[in-house]
Amino acid sequence: MLELGEIPESHPRRASLLARKKLVEASDAGLLADSAMIAHGRGEAFDYLLGEMTSDSASRAIKHASKMLVSAKSPVISVNGNTVVLAGKELIRLAAVVGCPIEVNLYYRTSERVSGLIGVLEDLKSEVLSEEAPEGFNEDWFSSVSSVEILGDEEDGRIEGLEGPRSICSSNGIESSDVILVPLEDGDRCEALVSLGKKVIAIDLNPLSRTARAATVTIVDEVLRASKKLVSDALLIDEDVHDWDNEAALREALEIMGSAMSRV
Amino acid sequence: MLELGEIPESHPRRASLLARKKLVEASDAGLLADSAMIAHGRGEAFDYLLGEMTSDSASRAIKHASKMLVSAKSPVISVNGNTVVLAGKELIRLAAVVGCPIEVNLYYRTSERVSGLIGVLEDLKSEVLSEEAPEGFNEDWFSSVSSVEILGDEEDGRIEGLEGPRSICSSNGIESSDVILVPLEDGDRCEALVSLGKKVIAIDLNPLSRTARAATVTIVDEVLRASKKLVSDALLIDEDVHDWDNEAALREALEIMGSAMSRV
Repeated sequence: MLELGEIPESHPRRASLLARKKLVEASDAGLLADSAMIAHGRGEAFDYLLGEMTSDSASRAIKHASKMLVSAKSPVISVNGNTVVLAGKELIRLAAVVGCPIEVNLYYRTSERVSGLIGVLEDLKSEVLSEEAPEGFNEDWFSSVSSVEILGDEEDGRIEGLEGPRSICSSNGIESSDVILVPLEDGDRCEALVSLGKKVIAIDLNPLSRTARAATVTIVDEVLRASKKLVSDALLIDEDVHDWDNEAALREALEIMGSAMSRV
Repeated sequence: MLELGEIPESHPRRASLLARKKLVEASDAGLLADSAMIAHGRGEAFDYLLGEMTSDSASRAIKHASKMLVSAKSPVISVNGNTVVLAGKELIRLAAVVGCPIEVNLYYRTSERVSGLIGVLEDLKSEVLSEEAPEGFNEDWFSSVSSVEILGDEEDGRIEGLEGPRSICSSNGIESSDVILVPLEDGDRCEALVSLGKKVIAIDLNPLSRTARAATVTIVDEVLRASKKLVSDALLIDEDVHDWDNEAALREALEIMGSAMSRV
């Protein structure tokens, strides 16, 4: 394993090592729950079996999910600590393209972490404001990014079916949404959101997790790779949304991971 | 995910959640490197694909490894932070049965962590002293446990082929050993030890890792389960050591993980 401080540009696993470095720093800054690093490690293992690239099956899930987001009435992107650290900037770009808010919503909720992560997202939003619009985006980028709301500390909504701090959400975010993109979500909460009739798009590297199985559309891919592709796909003008067979997509992901044995 | 504080006795994944809890506590106590939790998470994912149980293939590797340890001239058990936290007590029992030292040897070496982990092992050794001998052990348990040396702060040996702090070891431990049990080892170091002509037994849940591929015998199993079985197998009087096909064992592990897809 490389020291996290110095990762050569040429290293074949640079993206993975950089992600790890960012998480260690965020953990030291108190932005992550105890189990966040372990959860990331689980993801690393599944991504390793995927060959650390977006499969054709995941590409189809991303395309489908992007159509769901752009055609939704009240879409929202719900983020936790790992998601903000790994893909916060790309998800602000996605929110600007889709025209939806981002809600910081934590399973192990503390007000310190919620406000810390909102701060990180506000900083990232300032950076995105001064960057170029993604290719194919024809509206005013500055005003689209400016109008991305960062929600999470309102605590004025509830997720029915959950107890205690885990049920807290924003009324203008998750509570009133019809389509939710929730990368790296917990299984309980994914099931609760689905049972409220919401369409849930999960990004989860474990095709066997409860989240992966409960979601309407599961993108079995690393969150940063998937988020980048969601931005570009959301800008494509093409076909309608078709039916989606999520179980088939999970099987495909598992078959790819299973075939990793031929790499020995 | 459950809160780490309260894990019901009946929980189907109690062992996994307890392991996680112990690691979080050790990390808070400064005993683990930054990347330790991530490494554990990777292991969790592979163990999940194994069905969280010791496979027949891993059982054979454990039996073979136990014979190598008892028939070695100078065996040693090399441990890092995660190993001490997850299986320290079982490995002291194994060292007492085999009659070998345990060496704390860290890839990201700091003298604080080395002495902290030696302290943890000394405490566990006191506990093991007052416990019953494993079934089939016919010598004096108290004196066998008492004579287990905990090495690691001597710094009087070197692993040739490695640079800087990573090359430091104990002359009475790793340096003079012919057979080394190294659970959760780094790839670089595993390769260096093998190229010095030592027989290396790795315990690694990732059958694709460099460590798994470089080791003489790779036990693809969770470290606590494997350590318990190493103790009981080391006490069996049976067949000679046969040839070992490590690549075949790795293929078997991958096939089991690959077949996890049928669980969806």
